[in-house]
Amino acid sequence: MTVQDDIAAMMDEIGARARAAASRLAIASSAAKSDALSAAADALVARAEGMVAANARDMDAARDKGLGAAMLDRLMLDEARVRAIAESLRAIAAQPDPVGEIVEAWDRPSGIAIERVRTPLGVIGVIYESRPNVTADAGALCLKSGNAVILRGGSESHHSAAAIHACLVEGLRAADLPEDAIQLVPTRDRAAVSRMLGMTGVIDVIVPRGGKGLVGLVQAEARVPVFAHLEGIVHIFLDASADPEKALRIVLNAKTRRTGICGAVECLLIHRDAIATVGQGVVRALLDAGVEVRGSAEVAAIEGVVAAGEDDWGREFLDKVIAARVVDDLDAAMDHIARYGSDHTDCIVTEDDAAAERFLNEVDSAIVMVNASTQFADGGEFGMGAEIGIATGRLHARGPVGARQLTSFKYRVRGDGAVRS
Amino acid sequence: MTVQDDIAAMMDEIGARARAAASRLAIASSAAKSDALSAAADALVARAEGMVAANARDMDAARDKGLGAAMLDRLMLDEARVRAIAESLRAIAAQPDPVGEIVEAWDRPSGIAIERVRTPLGVIGVIYESRPNVTADAGALCLKSGNAVILRGGSESHHSAAAIHACLVEGLRAADLPEDAIQLVPTRDRAAVSRMLGMTGVIDVIVPRGGKGLVGLVQAEARVPVFAHLEGIVHIFLDASADPEKALRIVLNAKTRRTGICGAVECLLIHRDAIATVGQGVVRALLDAGVEVRGSAEVAAIEGVVAAGEDDWGREFLDKVIAARVVDDLDAAMDHIARYGSDHTDCIVTEDDAAAERFLNEVDSAIVMVNASTQFADGGEFGMGAEIGIATGRLHARGPVGARQLTSFKYRVRGDGAVRS
Repeated sequence: MTVQDDIAAMMDEIGARARAAASRLAIASSAAKSDALSAAADALVARAEGMVAANARDMDAARDKGLGAAMLDRLMLDEARVRAIAESLRAIAAQPDPVGEIVEAWDRPSGIAIERVRTPLGVIGVIYESRPNVTADAGALCLKSGNAVILRGGSESHHSAAAIHACLVEGLRAADLPEDAIQLVPTRDRAAVSRMLGMTGVIDVIVPRGGKGLVGLVQAEARVPVFAHLEGIVHIFLDASADPEKALRIVLNAKTRRTGICGAVECLLIHRDAIATVGQGVVRALLDAGVEVRGSAEVAAIEGVVAAGEDDWGREFLDKVIAARVVDDLDAAMDHIARYGSDHTDCIVTEDDAAAERFLNEVDSAIVMVNASTQFADGGEFGMGAEIGIATGRLHARGPVGARQLTSFKYRVRGDGAVRS
Repeated sequence: MTVQDDIAAMMDEIGARARAAASRLAIASSAAKSDALSAAADALVARAEGMVAANARDMDAARDKGLGAAMLDRLMLDEARVRAIAESLRAIAAQPDPVGEIVEAWDRPSGIAIERVRTPLGVIGVIYESRPNVTADAGALCLKSGNAVILRGGSESHHSAAAIHACLVEGLRAADLPEDAIQLVPTRDRAAVSRMLGMTGVIDVIVPRGGKGLVGLVQAEARVPVFAHLEGIVHIFLDASADPEKALRIVLNAKTRRTGICGAVECLLIHRDAIATVGQGVVRALLDAGVEVRGSAEVAAIEGVVAAGEDDWGREFLDKVIAARVVDDLDAAMDHIARYGSDHTDCIVTEDDAAAERFLNEVDSAIVMVNASTQFADGGEFGMGAEIGIATGRLHARGPVGARQLTSFKYRVRGDGAVRS
């Protein structure tokens, strides 16, 4: 047997165990699932020192590999971060159980009563990079929604993920739930990922969490359905009637609060009638805040703005950089978004209700906004508790994916001897 | 260019037109969509004679090919059937528009108000066999849900489908909607189907309608997501507490009302404690009704029952044949269903509430029933109006797929200058 064969066999074994666990989890009580999460949180806090020590091994290796400061910060665990992860587990534990929730119910004249009720999806695969907290959040959300999960973390966070995973398994054991409900792929070999992506009939959906490289690879190779977004090419359109104060506040927050998240704005579209007033004010404020503004001709006329190149439209900077373009009207703004956007989050700043409604209805993105910062594009901000990711596809899941979107449904039909005529 | 290249180019052109039409349809008014369907129904009735004549050409060709009586009956159109198709279009026109429906709405303490609202999926491909009414029903359901559709009918119904399609296009024109919203693939070449199955990014979902051969091929080959069921291996479990009169009525209806539909029961599971009473009565009634009963040893002891072979479990007879097996208890019945079922529809006949609840919760089929005929597994019987098919997958659509399940959703977020802290 080659190494590849070995890994394929190992992944198939992990898959078979996950399916068996999924059957048991599907009928687990809400209390058992919450208990498991609370016990896992307790274990994390009790072993915080061990977590930090395991993470220190990952950090040493990462420094040896010459990873950058941003990457190191993402990877790092201290006791405060371990406590935050535990708190996140407790928050998920406290949420309502989506499984068994009756979504709708109705009676038919034929004498049957029908309920549509949420059920788990089955087995979820999560492929992620360096953030250790994804191990806990993804594991917890899948458990909450009654799904077994196969976690495949990045090689940089190998020891951290293993330490966190051990706490999750301790929680499962404490609640008498199958330990195979949350499995961590033990190998760092890339062949394990390839195998996962082809495990149709075993894994029901794959969620990739990470940069464009990882997500693009998963989307291109996967035969299993994928919930993901490749990029967050987020636009804000300053309409002619935009309120100057709101525009300023929203754009600054959407660009500078955090530049590295997918809800950060990457392109500002400015109505021609607003460029000399609201537009100019917003651009100057961005420059003052240290943001590099790459503008179309009219915007580049403002001192400090550099000329945008064609490849600055539809570009995800994830940095203190923003593209800015003047457009003739609402239609031109929506055309730009349809052409360059990524179906993630797009926003209009306007005081004109008709323009707002057209934007909300006609822009085909997972999240469309009026007069709000695009950094609200987040499961926590939507009130879902944690999110496993944000999806831009149109099948099943869309926008922030919380526990509820990790469920399917079935119909329960009750009669009293009813037959079809 | 080869013929294959020609067909690929033609399908790509059809796909591009469908996408363009989908963008316009997504923002079409409810009234325009209903008007188009009503106008199409009017056209069908006005041209009923022409429909029947076109169908006669298909019928002649089918007879020449030696198609069987059941197939010919499926294919046949007379004026009454044309009127029924028109009525179905009017019924879909009269249903509420799922697009724009606000599924949920909530406010967040951060100052944003969130709505989840239904949107179209985009472009749907429907691949079907001989029934001419599928052209109308599938076209109408996709239009109702704001989706463009590419219809690929069976070669047997070529002329009938073209005649019905012309009426649908007339309806679109009358309502000033894009004619490309409902396209019929003009070629009978099988290469068109292969091309459709790989058109990811153009077709959002494929719905195959037809026998196991067609559906299996689509499921195996498609790279586009598929809503389908391969088989309806439907079980009824007669529990120890089953009411004899209800059991008799339900099983007879579920088997004999129509034997060729996917909701027809194919396997009867009988609790050991009920075989001498309820079980025996039901089996005798089936035999009296002319049903061939293939039984396990205990059932085969009843006069007239033939011995079942191992391949009779998990078999879709679609005929006046039923498999019947004695099981020890509810768990054994559920184990049998998990092993041999097809996740379509399964039913328990019982007067024991605890057994009913366990069955409803633990059997993982799209439709689970208590004391009702499995022939209710149908979009019309569920109150959805027409259905485009029944799905047994767990992603997005499940059970009868009506207009609502042909939609996706997006989030509308409204603020008044809200920013994230």
